Amino acid sequence: MKLYTFFRSSASYRVRISLNLKGLSCEQVPIHLRRGGGEQHTPAYKAINPQELVPTLEDGNRLITQSLAIIEYLEERYPKPALLPPDPADRSLVRGMALVVACEIHPIQNLRVLNYLRNNLKHTEEEVNRWAQHWIGLGLAALEQMVLSAPKRGDFCFGDSPSLADIFLVPQLYNARRFGCDLSGSPTLVQIDAACRALPAFADAAPEKQSDAE
Amino acid sequence: MKLYTFFRSSASYRVRISLNLKGLSCEQVPIHLRRGGGEQHTPAYKAINPQELVPTLEDGNRLITQSLAIIEYLEERYPKPALLPPDPADRSLVRGMALVVACEIHPIQNLRVLNYLRNNLKHTEEEVNRWAQHWIGLGLAALEQMVLSAPKRGDFCFGDSPSLADIFLVPQLYNARRFGCDLSGSPTLVQIDAACRALPAFADAAPEKQSDAE
Repeated sequence: MKLYTFFRSSASYRVRISLNLKGLSCEQVPIHLRRGGGEQHTPAYKAINPQELVPTLEDGNRLITQSLAIIEYLEERYPKPALLPPDPADRSLVRGMALVVACEIHPIQNLRVLNYLRNNLKHTEEEVNRWAQHWIGLGLAALEQMVLSAPKRGDFCFGDSPSLADIFLVPQLYNARRFGCDLSGSPTLVQIDAACRALPAFADAAPEKQSDAE
Repeated sequence: MKLYTFFRSSASYRVRISLNLKGLSCEQVPIHLRRGGGEQHTPAYKAINPQELVPTLEDGNRLITQSLAIIEYLEERYPKPALLPPDPADRSLVRGMALVVACEIHPIQNLRVLNYLRNNLKHTEEEVNRWAQHWIGLGLAALEQMVLSAPKRGDFCFGDSPSLADIFLVPQLYNARRFGCDLSGSPTLVQIDAACRALPAFADAAPEKQSDAE
């Protein structure tokens, strides 16, 4: 398997954590999102991923895009250790937590959206930062509530082992810190994030540990 | 089962299609997203869904949020007819198509984001519209490519029966038309959308067919 990735992309970060948790080795191909106008926009990469986004997982003759689709694929191909609990209602809760990050936070604070605010709508860095902080804050507050009211509490988002929800949480908190978000309203998530980052699977997937890190 | 829904919410629309495809009956509880500042923000609804978003599926004592998590739950609880193909790589492609809508288009053109552009950043309706058209256009162009290069072509996004990808496509094209997007660059998606909407499961889920439609 081959992963087209960028060290600071939080969607790539999620897949790296998942590969590590499953104990899978995978060649990493760095795609620099800023260099030369963005390597994700080259014809060569566009042929790999028409969305011009990272990550893409290459497995044999198949190219798999979208981090959540990649992780569900890994879960189906390599079920152990499981990233989702066995019960359907519990699985939907864990998926729901991941989707709060994947759909309600990350897309709105993603590089290309912030660039549109900067370049097309002529907003200042302060306004762009406030935008990112607003959506991150709103989403994390909801996620904190979901975790607290889950039927199974433990060291992680759901129970006592890392799941899909934690895989999405940790890269989002990394972003939140980059944007200078106040995390005091999400003490449970901060605690879970620390527990995750103490595990090698999470630590080794961190942006600063990647070969393309700057 | 009970579905908290809003007729025009495209995330609710996705779940309605899925319930219909599976032949499941479900009580619908309308949550009006605009009336009185938005019924999704009332303490009563916030207790049901801390994200203050629709839809929410109530099944017994469980509350399930996030449309994709709800649909994966329905798929696991009621496997027939299947909304995902059997092969893991094919499943990841279909999920990837759905996620292009769920992560790369819909969140960025969602009501609350557009309201932030209007109210906080003081953009004109024309600028707000151009914003929505930009992200919808970009996402649909990528999706068109994914569908065209899929290993299985047919009347739907993947092969000859409706899948998760179509369930996400149809409500997104409904939105695209509301925003006056030019769909001439996505002829395949427009054709698939028509094939879907000819099916009762899709037709009956349409916003204008709902009891809370205005």
